[in-house]
Formats: sequence, C-alpha cells, structure tokens
Amino acid sequence: MSAANAEAYRRLVESDPVLVDIRPAFEVVPGMTEATVLTSGPPLDPAEYMGGQRRAILYGAVYEGLAADLDDAERKVAAGEIEISNCHSHGCVGSVAGIYTASMPVFVVENRAFGNRGFCNFYEGESRRRLNYGSYDEGVEAGLRFIERTLAPTLREAVLVDGGIELRPIIRRAITMGDELHSRNTAATTLLMKALAPRLLELGLAGRVGADAVRETLAFMGASDYFFLRLSMAAAKATADAAHGIEGSSIVTAMTLSCKSFAIRVSGLGDRWFDGPHPTLEGKLFDGFTEDDIEWIGGESHITETVGLGGFCQAAAFALQAYQGGSAQAMAALNEQMYEITTGEHPELKIPYFGYRGVPVGIDVERVLETGIVPVIDGGLAGRGGGQIGAGILRAPMECFEAAGAALAATRA
Amino acid sequence: MSAANAEAYRRLVESDPVLVDIRPAFEVVPGMTEATVLTSGPPLDPAEYMGGQRRAILYGAVYEGLAADLDDAERKVAAGEIEISNCHSHGCVGSVAGIYTASMPVFVVENRAFGNRGFCNFYEGESRRRLNYGSYDEGVEAGLRFIERTLAPTLREAVLVDGGIELRPIIRRAITMGDELHSRNTAATTLLMKALAPRLLELGLAGRVGADAVRETLAFMGASDYFFLRLSMAAAKATADAAHGIEGSSIVTAMTLSCKSFAIRVSGLGDRWFDGPHPTLEGKLFDGFTEDDIEWIGGESHITETVGLGGFCQAAAFALQAYQGGSAQAMAALNEQMYEITTGEHPELKIPYFGYRGVPVGIDVERVLETGIVPVIDGGLAGRGGGQIGAGILRAPMECFEAAGAALAATRA
Repeated sequence: MSAANAEAYRRLVESDPVLVDIRPAFEVVPGMTEATVLTSGPPLDPAEYMGGQRRAILYGAVYEGLAADLDDAERKVAAGEIEISNCHSHGCVGSVAGIYTASMPVFVVENRAFGNRGFCNFYEGESRRRLNYGSYDEGVEAGLRFIERTLAPTLREAVLVDGGIELRPIIRRAITMGDELHSRNTAATTLLMKALAPRLLELGLAGRVGADAVRETLAFMGASDYFFLRLSMAAAKATADAAHGIEGSSIVTAMTLSCKSFAIRVSGLGDRWFDGPHPTLEGKLFDGFTEDDIEWIGGESHITETVGLGGFCQAAAFALQAYQGGSAQAMAALNEQMYEITTGEHPELKIPYFGYRGVPVGIDVERVLETGIVPVIDGGLAGRGGGQIGAGILRAPMECFEAAGAALAATRA
Repeated sequence: MSAANAEAYRRLVESDPVLVDIRPAFEVVPGMTEATVLTSGPPLDPAEYMGGQRRAILYGAVYEGLAADLDDAERKVAAGEIEISNCHSHGCVGSVAGIYTASMPVFVVENRAFGNRGFCNFYEGESRRRLNYGSYDEGVEAGLRFIERTLAPTLREAVLVDGGIELRPIIRRAITMGDELHSRNTAATTLLMKALAPRLLELGLAGRVGADAVRETLAFMGASDYFFLRLSMAAAKATADAAHGIEGSSIVTAMTLSCKSFAIRVSGLGDRWFDGPHPTLEGKLFDGFTEDDIEWIGGESHITETVGLGGFCQAAAFALQAYQGGSAQAMAALNEQMYEITTGEHPELKIPYFGYRGVPVGIDVERVLETGIVPVIDGGLAGRGGGQIGAGILRAPMECFEAAGAALAATRA
C-alpha cells in the first residue's frame, strides 16, 4: 500500500462523526444563499439538469418561495435569480435528487478526529411521494414544513442537551442488528430513538419543548425506519472528506449520480469528477412498475459505500432481500468481492456473518482497474413522474475508474 | 403428519401473546402463596435441590422475608413452612435457577388466540451477580427491590395505557434485526422501548408517574439488552401451553433443567416429565473460568426453543458468536438441522438468512428418535458459587426423547 493510500485509509477509519447541531441550511452550509438550490451530482450547467431532476430543483424553488410555480422558477433560473449548485461543493450529500433550499434543516455532523463537517437534510417519511424522489404536492409540502417547524427544532433541543450524539457507536451496533446503513437503517433509527427518548422526556417535563412537539417527534421517528439514513450520509460525508486531498492517493472519496452520469472523486485528484454512464442494476420494483419506469434523477447516498457501509456491508443486512431482491448467498458474495477493491478493513465496524471481519474500507481506483470489479451500491429507485418505485443493487460504471486511472497516471508522469 | 400433531402445530403458530399486565406473583400466579418459592426444573422433593440451585431457593426465601438467613430458611423448608414448587406447575418459566417469590413482579402474557396465560419475572440487569444465577448480596437485593418498587409499577402504568402490548410483532421484527429471542434480545428490547417511550412520556406529563421513576425506568431498560428475554419466555410459555394436552400428539411443549436433570414434557402425555442427564455443551466462558467451573442450577429459558426461537433461529443472530462462540456457518448448519426434527415452519416468524424461511416449530419426539438429532439450545452458564460465567450452545440429551417415545408407544398400545 502506498503511503498516500495508507494515510487516506487511516483518516477513513479514525474519523469520529458526531451530530453536534441541527440548523437551517442557510445558517450553516458553506456558500449557501437564500436563493440557492442544491442538487445531487457533479457540477453541471443549469441547462443540463433534465427530466425529473430538473423538476425536483424547480419544486424546491417553489417550496422555498423563490418562485410562484415551475414556469416562474424556470424564468428565474434562466435569469440567474435562482442559483443551482451541487451538494458536494457545499459539504452536503443528496439523497436521490438531493434538493436543499435555504430554510431546510440540516444535520450538522462534526468529524471530531479531523475537525471538518458534513451536512445532510432530513428524511421526509415513509410516503413514496417525496421531494427527494421528484414528487411535489400539498402532502409533500406539508411534510417538509413539519420537518422545518416542528421536528428539527425539537430534535435540535434534544441534540444540544448533552453536547451532541456520537454516531460511530450507533453505526457499529446497528451493523450487528441487521443494518448496512444505506438501504437499511431500522436498527440505527431505533438506537437513535433510544438515545433521544430520555432527553425528549426531560425537555417535555421541563416545559422546554411543548408536549405536542415531543409527541409528534417520537411518532415521526417511530414510523420512519429510514430516519437515520441522513445521519449515516452526513457521517459518511464528514468521514470521506477527511480523506480527501492527499497527494498521490488513489482512494475514492465520493461517488455521485445525476440525471446525466455517474461520477467519482478521488483523494489525490483534487476537485475533479470522473464521469461514466448510469449504473447497471438488479432491482426489485414495487407492484405495477417495470424497469422502463425507472428514471435517474440523481443520488449521493452511496457516500455510505465510500466509507464501507451499504453494499460494502450488505452481509450484515440479509433482511434487505425483501426490499431489493437477491439472496443471502448473493449478498454475501457481492460483499466479499468488495474486499478485493479496498485498501483495508475497519477496525471497529464489523460484520458478524464474516466472523466479525471489519467492513472493507477505502475503494482504490487502481484495484478496481486491476480486478475489473466495480463497487456495488444498495439504492432506491425513482420513477418517471416522481416517487419511489423500487430498490436494487447498482454497479458503478467502469468508465469513471478508467478516467480516474488515466488522470492518476498523468499526475505521476 | 398426524392430526394430533397438526393441531399442536396450528396452536403453536396461531398463538397471539400479548403483554396485558405486570403484577406481584402472589396476586396472579395460580397456586402461589406468600410462602411459596418457585424454581426451575421438573417437580422435585425439597430435599433433592442441591448446590447452587438450593442456595438460590434459600436466598429467595431470605429476599422475601420468609427467613432470616440460609440456616433459618433450611429449617423452615424442612418444617414445611416454606413451600418449594416448580415454575411450570404455576404457569411460570424460570431463567436459570428461576427463583420466584410472592412479591416479585411478573409479566402477565395472555395468549389472545386461546385464552391461556403465561408468566415470567424480570431480568435483573447486566451484572453477572444475579439471583437467577444463584448470587445474593446487598447489590442483588437492591436490584430486586428496584424492580419491585420502581420499575414494575412504572412499566405497569405504561402497559395498561393502551390495552397491552402485542408481542408477536416485536418478535417477528426482532428476528430481522439480529435477535433469536433467547440469548440475544437487543433488538426486541429496543423495539419495546420504542413502543413504551411515548406512553411513559404521557404518564410523566400527566403526573401519573413521577419523573424520576420514568427516568430510572428508561435508564434501566436502556442498559439492559436482555430485558425482553423474560417477555420472550412468557410469550413462549403461553404459546407452548396452548399446544399442550392434545391426545396422541408427540410435540414437545416444554424443556426444563434442574440441578439433577434435563426433562421434557410432551403434548399428548399429560403432566409427566421425561428425564435425561444434563446437556452437552459447546461454550464460551468469560475470562478466568474453565468448564470445571460450570454448575447446573436449573433453567427453563429454552421454552423459547420449544416455540422455534433461540437455537431454532440462531441463523438470524450471527452477532451471538461474540457471546457464545462458534461461527456463522456452524450456527446456520445447526439451525438447518432443526428443520429435521420439527413439524412445520412458522408462517410469520421468518429468518432472512434462509431467504425468509419460517422458523422451525414443533419439536416432534418421533422425528428426534428417527433422525438422532436433538434440539440445540442457546444458553447462559452459571458458575459454582453463583454468577454467570459464560454462554454456549447446549444439546438436549437423547434419553428424554427415548423415555417419551416409550411412553407414546405405551399410550398407543
């Protein structure tokens, strides 16, 4: 292993993400203005966002009050009055379309080992119609307002009570309870509730938070098995960013997806993104949908795979078969392959099925090219016209790694 | 399958255990008097209880105020002033030594499908020194008093709020989150907390339960990963009892362990118990202990295996390797063997690793005899002098099944 990759690996596994605050994006996200809409994917020209991802961006502008309707939003984007930017450039990661507007609350996750921060906004709930899946209507808006006005302020009080919440112990434990922290977060969400319930109770008893707010917060989290995903993502972002920018390192520090492409970023290659086509897919679709209904509208939740979670620890989460298809044996085999393309194993995050072997961490572009094995990703699938229509196992395109490999060779030359 | 076994199987899988109340044993356990001490195992003469199990019984008498000390307790047992009886004869199941006294609170679990009830007392907490493991000192006593005076009354209020708590949905879900509901109850305990937290909040806000009691209750449950075991046991007891007493059925409806023997009860063979020697064992001992330190002081938590949990769904709980040794592959292989000796698969409780195959339910004496395969049991190990000293996988002795098989043949003849 090169010294550069050893250092990137060290930073990945020594990262210590802690939820320290919950704040409106405008107040904490670097470079966020009142007129900014963030979305998933590598940086694109505003005109390049198409289809469902474009609609999601415009819906975000309407939600934020930046535009009266989609046409108005289009005009303001063209006039430069609404600024579209990509999440990763602002320390954020997007789930599916990944829409952030100024007033949306974000989890503030601090990497205590290295001092950097990652952000992610909130899970919208169990409905298949959600803004992050490109849907928007009165129900979607009401859900987002509840998050903004009730859920986030209440949880913020609970988070601040005791100086934040360490996320690594929850993630470590959830892996022994059937989560892989990307497409399955049931245990982590429940463990988070276990940590928050006594704090919420104290706040309610002391009258510092209204009883209804506490009630509604517990009810929302109790009904949202994916709630923790956004914390897993923010933690992964804070972790991956700490390993970015090491000269000579061929470790992947982000993978992203837009309506146009799949792209990766590499520790030793600065802010460049290396593009490829959309992933190949083995999916399980909800009843009534076919593969023709799938639309790529963006996605960055595979920041989790970048740090050894998701597809890289799916042998911890056999329950996922019911959601995304496949078999336990296939899941274990895919997971094992990931050890072929990574730099090391995590000393703390361990998979019981593999005899408590550490999750594979640090995707190495060189090893992907040598082995011909690309990263596997657990992911949700968006449908044309909006909404979630299924889930599946995605395979990153080799083209990204070939492009990054060429750039690494050029750097060395 | 015989009609009798089909009926026993139907009752096992249609059982619907609901936690309906928490009460002092004296108030609800059939046949319990103020001077009764219950313990694990088939019925024995008082003089037959030996070693650690005898000490645990006498400690129970001291805890209850029936005797001043162990010598006084011995005298009162001899004089018939303290009555020793076995848990199963009173609708109860004992964890390890299984000591119940009159004032100890018990979970009251009603089988809503068949109308019968099962009882189990409380988990004492994470200390290795616990009365159920034959230990007694000021700390053990203080823990039991906390359960009696604070924890149980507080939880009772929460249980009664909304007409009880259905246990099957929690068990079903916990199996997809790494529990087998005998030696691992981490997920089920957390899911129970998730169900109870909003109720405790309401009680606290309404002033119906003191804030300190709510606080201490959440703190105890939050620190007790095994808390749910006693509910799993009471649910299993209520389930197994519903399948008992079917003429001609060769299905096992209880397995128990005393200082003297391992014994089983069979649906079609009335109240007789069929004895064998103590189980064979593959254990993992806590640091500093050897197999010579193990003492058999009783145990009935394998009521869980009797209904398809524990060793019968250990392929759902690979995390147990860290606690009881073995490998994931060995656990899966043992679990698969259990399909050879059972009557059917549970239509609702399913193991993700086996492609969501139902847990094997209904141990059939005839199939044990035909295949030579005996039930596997996940269990904790008690040490000489008291306390838990490890855990492991136990194998029931074939002799019980041979004796029961002979009795079945005699019945038919």
